[in-house]
Amino acid sequence: MLLNEARLKQCMTAAGLDAIIATAPENVTYMSGFWALPQWIRRGPQAYVVWPAPDKGTPEIIASTSTLDLVADQELWVSKVRRYGDFYADVAPSTSADRANMQHLQLRALPRHSDAIGALVAALEEAKLARGRIGIDEAGLAPGYQEALKAHFPNASWMPATALLREVRAVKTTDEIERLGQVAKIAERSIEAALAVAQEGATEADVARAFHVKTVEEGALPVLGCIGFGERSALMNVQPSDRRLRAGEIIRFDVGGRFRHYRADIARIAALGEPPPQAHRLQQALLRGVQHACDIIRPGMAAAQLFETVVRVVKREGIAHYERDHVGHGIGLDGYDAPTLSARSTDILEEGMVLCVETPYYEIGRWGLQVEDMVVVRQRGVERLTQTHDAITRVPL
Amino acid sequence: MLLNEARLKQCMTAAGLDAIIATAPENVTYMSGFWALPQWIRRGPQAYVVWPAPDKGTPEIIASTSTLDLVADQELWVSKVRRYGDFYADVAPSTSADRANMQHLQLRALPRHSDAIGALVAALEEAKLARGRIGIDEAGLAPGYQEALKAHFPNASWMPATALLREVRAVKTTDEIERLGQVAKIAERSIEAALAVAQEGATEADVARAFHVKTVEEGALPVLGCIGFGERSALMNVQPSDRRLRAGEIIRFDVGGRFRHYRADIARIAALGEPPPQAHRLQQALLRGVQHACDIIRPGMAAAQLFETVVRVVKREGIAHYERDHVGHGIGLDGYDAPTLSARSTDILEEGMVLCVETPYYEIGRWGLQVEDMVVVRQRGVERLTQTHDAITRVPL
Repeated sequence: MLLNEARLKQCMTAAGLDAIIATAPENVTYMSGFWALPQWIRRGPQAYVVWPAPDKGTPEIIASTSTLDLVADQELWVSKVRRYGDFYADVAPSTSADRANMQHLQLRALPRHSDAIGALVAALEEAKLARGRIGIDEAGLAPGYQEALKAHFPNASWMPATALLREVRAVKTTDEIERLGQVAKIAERSIEAALAVAQEGATEADVARAFHVKTVEEGALPVLGCIGFGERSALMNVQPSDRRLRAGEIIRFDVGGRFRHYRADIARIAALGEPPPQAHRLQQALLRGVQHACDIIRPGMAAAQLFETVVRVVKREGIAHYERDHVGHGIGLDGYDAPTLSARSTDILEEGMVLCVETPYYEIGRWGLQVEDMVVVRQRGVERLTQTHDAITRVPL
Repeated sequence: MLLNEARLKQCMTAAGLDAIIATAPENVTYMSGFWALPQWIRRGPQAYVVWPAPDKGTPEIIASTSTLDLVADQELWVSKVRRYGDFYADVAPSTSADRANMQHLQLRALPRHSDAIGALVAALEEAKLARGRIGIDEAGLAPGYQEALKAHFPNASWMPATALLREVRAVKTTDEIERLGQVAKIAERSIEAALAVAQEGATEADVARAFHVKTVEEGALPVLGCIGFGERSALMNVQPSDRRLRAGEIIRFDVGGRFRHYRADIARIAALGEPPPQAHRLQQALLRGVQHACDIIRPGMAAAQLFETVVRVVKREGIAHYERDHVGHGIGLDGYDAPTLSARSTDILEEGMVLCVETPYYEIGRWGLQVEDMVVVRQRGVERLTQTHDAITRVPL
């Protein structure tokens, strides 16, 4: 199960919530396993999970009739479903025994609500939440829907809950860590495949194409593909262009796909032939920052303290003027899960968090260097989801 | 240019707007050319385009400091930029003459606003819009921001503008049609590549992988990949599984990637060996519906009339009980642009609209059949972006 149910209950209790409503795609998938295609590839389509406190009712999924086939075909741990809207489909005279089709038929026979907000109102009424304290994930709700809910339930007390759900998602379950481990390794193997085409005269686009092809071959989908050569590696979000690779140049990867909905985000630096000695020294300092983080990360550590330590190590190891806003973040269904490893962060590391620990360094006009690895916070230290690596990978000329 | 500037002005004038603010990723890219990576791959990050009426000021982009490299490296037609937030970067002692890096440096020297809403408020104040009538694309704005704007400008009059911008985007420019033509052809070639591996015993996942690999090889990114075999083709959003292909089975593709930000959405039906004769007859009826649409589509035609006609043709040609909510939609930066080809639609077809014309037919427990093609509405009829095709492609056993 993706959902950390114990943590959800704990966070809901701490906030005094009678129910919580997930609306953003990552929260709907997280709470129920339901991946609603239209919600993930566009803005606007609505799908929800209503999750009452333990003694206040049964969790349920609210889905458009047009996505009930996905409800039927996916492994969900929320079995109550409410549908809205119409979607025409016929039924074969004699249906096969195929589970997904049978289940789909049953779901289509459920009572129909006219629209998403109508279904949500009905769910809250049925759960007798009209006077409850309700956490609403404001991030995925259609414009105007929050106002409509408040008008319909004037005696309910409403709390914005996007931040609370991000907090719940921060400590990963075994199933989540398994997926994150796979997608991290897919990103590493995709970088390897990309470097196989990083010859003199190859374009950034050529290298990016090889990266994404490998990601797809490994069963993931492309998301993040910042790949830049030479001075273009200093563009933090660099998008692959027709710029050609020359001997001695830096290649920066800040990349990662999505595997079974879970994201990777790692960085690697390579050079075609011998890297400039100065780049090597800088990258060593960045690497020591991340290595030190991996040495000291433990449950109970303040994220802000980790930030201060990593920046201090990078300064000491060779970049005296190093400045960063953050040295990493959580990762999961979203690319920026909690915690945030920054000076202002009030997050405390917990066992089971999955972190991207990173020390990027951009020198505009010259190059961008970066170390970024994915690790799991364990009781006795980190478990690395990415392999140890050299500071700069040398691609033979 | 992606933006249909004449149509934007016309729609703004008709709505009496002094300015319009784009906030959703598709509208920001559409209005300015600015593709803000974080906004496209996550929910939350904010980027805007403020577009005053012709005599009311200069259009501007509002971007986080962390995405100014993308502003610098992309071909934009909005040159005024306002930045918010911090992002640390050093500057090389002697910078190369590379245009993107130089431009990036200049953009980083712009005055800094503390956050997105602060930058937006400043932009509206500078443009003297405090008492203006302002259209706000409500779809991409962070929760609470709309209320903050209204509180800050109590004398402005606000109009939700997501629907208006969708209306503007409906009639494509030459540059948009060029991209849509390319991505449609990429989808067709990707289906061809997928069918090359659709042998007995191949899984849906194998076929989907071949589809997406080809999409990436052709320079696009995977988005939509509904590929199902046999009775699973009846699941409208079918996601590839380990189900293996057997002789005589239907393979349904409802697919399309993203090329230079523009979407494809086409459908094809194939069968391994000889398709069931009944499937062939049904698919012929669906095909005639789309073919008839392509014969009669002209600027000035009501979308609702097109819908009625297509449904009537499908009924007459062999599916007497055929029912659909819509027989197609526009496509562009979003997968469901205007117009909507449905009975309730009030849209009128215009020259330069790009349509997905489709006649899906789902028989739960048995199969899903579908025709979906992409066409441009031209003065004398449609220009097809996809090739004519047989009703059902036979894959040799």
